Amino acid sequence: MNMLYLTRKAEFAASHYYRNPQFTAEENLRIFGKCSNPNGHGHNYLLEVTVKGVVDPHSGFVVDLKQLKEIMNREVLDAMDHRFLNKEVPEFAKQIPTTENIAVAIWQRLAGKLERAKLHRIRVYETPDLFVDFYGET
Amino acid sequence: MNMLYLTRKAEFAASHYYRNPQFTAEENLRIFGKCSNPNGHGHNYLLEVTVKGVVDPHSGFVVDLKQLKEIMNREVLDAMDHRFLNKEVPEFAKQIPTTENIAVAIWQRLAGKLERAKLHRIRVYETPDLFVDFYGET
Amino acid sequence: MNMLYLTRKAEFAASHYYRNPQFTAEENLRIFGKCSNPNGHGHNYLLEVTVKGVVDPHSGFVVDLKQLKEIMNREVLDAMDHRFLNKEVPEFAKQIPTTENIAVAIWQRLAGKLERAKLHRIRVYETPDLFVDFYGET
Amino acid sequence: MNMLYLTRKAEFAASHYYRNPQFTAEENLRIFGKCSNPNGHGHNYLLEVTVKGVVDPHSGFVVDLKQLKEIMNREVLDAMDHRFLNKEVPEFAKQIPTTENIAVAIWQRLAGKLERAKLHRIRVYETPDLFVDFYGET
Amino acid sequence: MNMLYLTRKAEFAASHYYRNPQFTAEENLRIFGKCSNPNGHGHNYLLEVTVKGVVDPHSGFVVDLKQLKEIMNREVLDAMDHRFLNKEVPEFAKQIPTTENIAVAIWQRLAGKLERAKLHRIRVYETPDLFVDFYGET
Amino acid sequence: MNMLYLTRKAEFAASHYYRNPQFTAEENLRIFGKCSNPNGHGHNYLLEVTVKGVVDPHSGFVVDLKQLKEIMNREVLDAMDHRFLNKEVPEFAKQIPTTENIAVAIWQRLAGKLERAKLHRIRVYETPDLFVDFYGET
Repeated sequence: MNMLYLTRKAEFAASHYYRNPQFTAEENLRIFGKCSNPNGHGHNYLLEVTVKGVVDPHSGFVVDLKQLKEIMNREVLDAMDHRFLNKEVPEFAKQIPTTENIAVAIWQRLAGKLERAKLHRIRVYETPDLFVDFYGET
Repeated sequence: MNMLYLTRKAEFAASHYYRNPQFTAEENLRIFGKCSNPNGHGHNYLLEVTVKGVVDPHSGFVVDLKQLKEIMNREVLDAMDHRFLNKEVPEFAKQIPTTENIAVAIWQRLAGKLERAKLHRIRVYETPDLFVDFYGET
Repeated sequence: MNMLYLTRKAEFAASHYYRNPQFTAEENLRIFGKCSNPNGHGHNYLLEVTVKGVVDPHSGFVVDLKQLKEIMNREVLDAMDHRFLNKEVPEFAKQIPTTENIAVAIWQRLAGKLERAKLHRIRVYETPDLFVDFYGET
Repeated sequence: MNMLYLTRKAEFAASHYYRNPQFTAEENLRIFGKCSNPNGHGHNYLLEVTVKGVVDPHSGFVVDLKQLKEIMNREVLDAMDHRFLNKEVPEFAKQIPTTENIAVAIWQRLAGKLERAKLHRIRVYETPDLFVDFYGET
Repeated sequence: MNMLYLTRKAEFAASHYYRNPQFTAEENLRIFGKCSNPNGHGHNYLLEVTVKGVVDPHSGFVVDLKQLKEIMNREVLDAMDHRFLNKEVPEFAKQIPTTENIAVAIWQRLAGKLERAKLHRIRVYETPDLFVDFYGET
Repeated sequence: MNMLYLTRKAEFAASHYYRNPQFTAEENLRIFGKCSNPNGHGHNYLLEVTVKGVVDPHSGFVVDLKQLKEIMNREVLDAMDHRFLNKEVPEFAKQIPTTENIAVAIWQRLAGKLERAKLHRIRVYETPDLFVDFYGET
């Protein structure tokens, strides 16, 4: 059996900040540095969604690419693009929007939404030099 | 034992189109959209070939890089570069040249050709935002 | 006066081939090499459109970005994306679709279409390692 | 005489939004779309600073690279990195922080600060697909 | 349990050459080609360090990013950046500094140094078209 | 008249160091920092050669691309690739191989060698974040 892994990229521009209300101001500054500025700062997040499955012999596709794009737009980009993550995305009302937590939130938004293929990996780049991968709960 | 994975990239420029003769014209258009134009359209495909093996203690290499390049040129680029995949590459006479099927075809052309190392993964980028990975039959 | 230059990128996937019917078969092969294959081959063309103008003090913009995108889509991408340039784009019925001639054709399609700003430069990448710039007739 | 142009890149992560208080809510939405969200959104801005000058025959340099980096850090990155541009950078208290206006503000912060070379161009990428160039007042 | 993989990139500029003193001059030239020039040649090596772990619920982090950067600087970049690897890095006194051997050496320098997370993968790019991955001894 | 500018990229891997024998050891260290290590360090230099000219109406080309590649290989890459610039490239026997001086040396090696088009610009990237442009003597 031929298992194929297909990855589609997308970008979204969002702002966020890092602050734990249970930490003191000093702790927040020590742990989060300039990321703790409550006005927020932003990134062009680069998202890579990888799905896996066998090829449909009629279409040659693992997944309907238009459908994958629509799901990514509807479940992730509409909610996160041009948003202040801490204030406008429910997952981050009580959770710090680190790249790690963003990757898990995107996994949860996408898992189970695809028809033919299975979600395999979420990769989120916060900057070109820093990214996080999540393969689902284990 | 130290297992190392070495990846070499190469590019090829080819054209293709997506059409299943068993589908109606309407189905082809619905499923494949503008990719179904029979005149073809093209891409700069980016190929990543990953091999794995242990290091030869005399050379420090997992694989002879010149040999790897020659095999990639002879088995893949000579056949696919500056070609219309549907018309000129035998694998796609009866199979749609989707990125998925191209990755499998390249795997089959390369597997078993290397002397020291084993083929581990074929990655094919159709565009900078879309790529497919294949690790061989499982 | 502050003159600003704004550049927006777009990509299109097209196929083409190089052949001059006034050349012999040998001349076509010698001059154009494997690009002369009449089945065509393809590229992910990367287009950069640069406009120049002064900033509108009310909006802070040199040009309406949505309008620029619409004009690029309507005048260039709708005509060239997923097309066989030699057969389907009128400029290349009698002219070889080299990167040079593509850049001039895109300039002619865009010049005079913008409201506030002036077209300054068309850059077309045929591959990541080869591109052409055109600044209009001089 | 040999005139050389040297370019150094730097990145900064900031948030901003687009809103003109003299426009109605409808005008702000029509002109600025989702960029008008007052919570802000963000980008990884990529800055390219180009200086020009003749080579110092003793060092082989057009400009002292450490000094150039220090000036860029002190004048630009310390002020704009991890900041909400509308709220925390004085130039944008009354001016919309579009890429155009950011490029002019960075020019004004850097011009006249270099010892040997002259500032030639400021390029600011808001995203990988959109950038602005400014060469100073003319 | 949510296992997250975080990758941070860094670059270093170094020179090296490939030569095995047990080979004859002819063998060295045949096996290593122009890489055997004993004056050395150089690369901008791109290093990717991937760590894995569970997220600290208080910080949202898998690993302290500042600490990770400090360890990478102290253990790898201080030793290898702007160095002639064969002459100045102890691991390569008796071992050829191929990309494979560099990846293993970097793994050994970093493994066990991280507090919360575990080292998962070392990736080293010698050029943009050639890279090696190492996941530790197996 | 339509003036077109065509750019072709190439890469070479070389090592170098910065040291002026007329400076004291302290001055060399202060001015050149870790670049003054006489063992040398290296880079993957990225070269962009831009030529300008009018299009040949028979071929659609500004310049014969094969010829341009051959000239770049013969005049630049054969001399500089996999070399220690200070020791093996004559221009740098008495001149420090800074990016500035490398750009001028490459211009001098290429100017006057092209048949149809004129050399317009040499761009040399020492790292992805630092590059120099030279347009010839003025």
